[in-house]
Amino acid sequence: MTKLIAMFKEFKDSQVDQIKDLAHQYSYQVKMEDELLDTDDQDIAVIYGWSSDLTQERLETMPALKWIQKESAGVDAIPLSFRQKEDLLISNMSGIHAQPISEHVFAYILSHYRCMPQMAASQAQGVWSPPDPNLFRSLDDKTILVYGTGNIGIRMAQIGAVLGSRLIGVNTNGRPIEGFDQCIAFGQDKEWACRADIIINAMPLTDLNREYFDLDYFKTMKSSALFINIGRGASVKEADLHQALSDKLIESAYLDVFESEPLSEKSSLWQLDNIVITPHITGTVEHFMQESFKIFFPNLQSFLAEGVLVRNQVDPQKGY
Amino acid sequence: MTKLIAMFKEFKDSQVDQIKDLAHQYSYQVKMEDELLDTDDQDIAVIYGWSSDLTQERLETMPALKWIQKESAGVDAIPLSFRQKEDLLISNMSGIHAQPISEHVFAYILSHYRCMPQMAASQAQGVWSPPDPNLFRSLDDKTILVYGTGNIGIRMAQIGAVLGSRLIGVNTNGRPIEGFDQCIAFGQDKEWACRADIIINAMPLTDLNREYFDLDYFKTMKSSALFINIGRGASVKEADLHQALSDKLIESAYLDVFESEPLSEKSSLWQLDNIVITPHITGTVEHFMQESFKIFFPNLQSFLAEGVLVRNQVDPQKGY
Repeated sequence: MTKLIAMFKEFKDSQVDQIKDLAHQYSYQVKMEDELLDTDDQDIAVIYGWSSDLTQERLETMPALKWIQKESAGVDAIPLSFRQKEDLLISNMSGIHAQPISEHVFAYILSHYRCMPQMAASQAQGVWSPPDPNLFRSLDDKTILVYGTGNIGIRMAQIGAVLGSRLIGVNTNGRPIEGFDQCIAFGQDKEWACRADIIINAMPLTDLNREYFDLDYFKTMKSSALFINIGRGASVKEADLHQALSDKLIESAYLDVFESEPLSEKSSLWQLDNIVITPHITGTVEHFMQESFKIFFPNLQSFLAEGVLVRNQVDPQKGY
Repeated sequence: MTKLIAMFKEFKDSQVDQIKDLAHQYSYQVKMEDELLDTDDQDIAVIYGWSSDLTQERLETMPALKWIQKESAGVDAIPLSFRQKEDLLISNMSGIHAQPISEHVFAYILSHYRCMPQMAASQAQGVWSPPDPNLFRSLDDKTILVYGTGNIGIRMAQIGAVLGSRLIGVNTNGRPIEGFDQCIAFGQDKEWACRADIIINAMPLTDLNREYFDLDYFKTMKSSALFINIGRGASVKEADLHQALSDKLIESAYLDVFESEPLSEKSSLWQLDNIVITPHITGTVEHFMQESFKIFFPNLQSFLAEGVLVRNQVDPQKGY
């Protein structure tokens, strides 16, 4: 019985050819998602990418499954019981998203600080109308509080630092991380939350941070502060954020992730005028296939040869 | 006869008090623009700020004029014959604009590269609609050609470099400038103009670069390139830029300065869909009065005490 590598996300034809050549040396077969037959599931040993079709029930029909290579940094979409299996390898794409997410976060911040939406509205009317100079803000001397000090947090810190901001990182134990002016432990973050000009959630979802950003949290923030979520939607209590924004407890929110995606057309978040909603795209990277191939292919080589991964293996205890 | 310090731009009351206290020690009087009588002009020794009322004719009625402290980096608004007077000191605010202009330029670039306008349009309709992933671009590995390697150019280079771009500077003689990967001489810039992903004009206006960016220039650019002008409008031939944008010879232009300002409502530039027009605000700085006071006040002290300036004096030959 041939073992299967099931591809739930595309590569370029030339890359697929390389993957197939390698797989065949080890008598594995490669099938794209749309080529999979119902009877194939029992032979799937490797999943590349992800799909909402991969429910717990379906995964349980895959006794041969040995490795899931996610196409994103987060692995919380994989059912918990599978994340905790000791004999299932899980790897992610952490790292390749750090650059585009960081660029996107600074697109959010700089367009806000430099009044770009107001001026786009004036331009649309063909009107030369400089905004009140007091509305412009600079990142120089601002404080940015970043939850999550992994690849993404570090990249944002590097960019924020060159722009003149003070970078405070939050991680599990407050261990220092290069690029941050200071790191503090999760749970001791409130003393900075009340002083930060910009707060960014870049954490993977864990039991520790589910619904962490709630009304109490937003109440501690400065009324001039921005809240940015590029981590996971479930870390934010959306109803509470809605109230904080309606009541102007904070100035603005920039959200790329939501409790449920796509964000429902009926969500009241759409009605707010101090929010920017983007459709989970901050990680979208130019040349994605090239970058992701650089992680998947070496992993596939070592997996087939020795049953181990050499890049981006996820710790099942931590979840990232 | 009391000599006058004429203020054409505001400071805070407390700062004005400091200026007045100092001035009175040297028997100078301080008047704000709206306090000036017609008969005052002959007593004006110092001009702070600028106004379009300060024509050549009017300046010629100021025999006591010894120093003009501009409120911007550019001094080309001062009539040429006055810029060349050997006994007239001129100083500018070069430096304080480097940070806000650089932040604004990266707001332009990142919002373009990260498809922010498309997503703002989707959000306005309450629609979750991720743009085509191929539309997203990263500054990583891009080439940015910057005309002008003064304070503003250097600051932009620092930010571009941390984002992963290659920075090429253009100055009069190609002298190397820290922060740029390479500098080339003005006149030998075409070999990079055809390869650059982003071209930024940050030059002061001189006879050398008037209408430099013309149709021939735009024809050498990549069709995917962005042209950004935060220098002076007169360095660009606007009709030619309009044609280049209409014919899609280049992808987009971001303009903060124009041949004539405010840009006329009748300008055909407003009609283009691949242009962003901002009303000469990239230099608008948070805490402007604080920052500009740090340049004006030490200059006023040294001017009154010894007739010299200690900060930001402009070379009349170079014009910056």
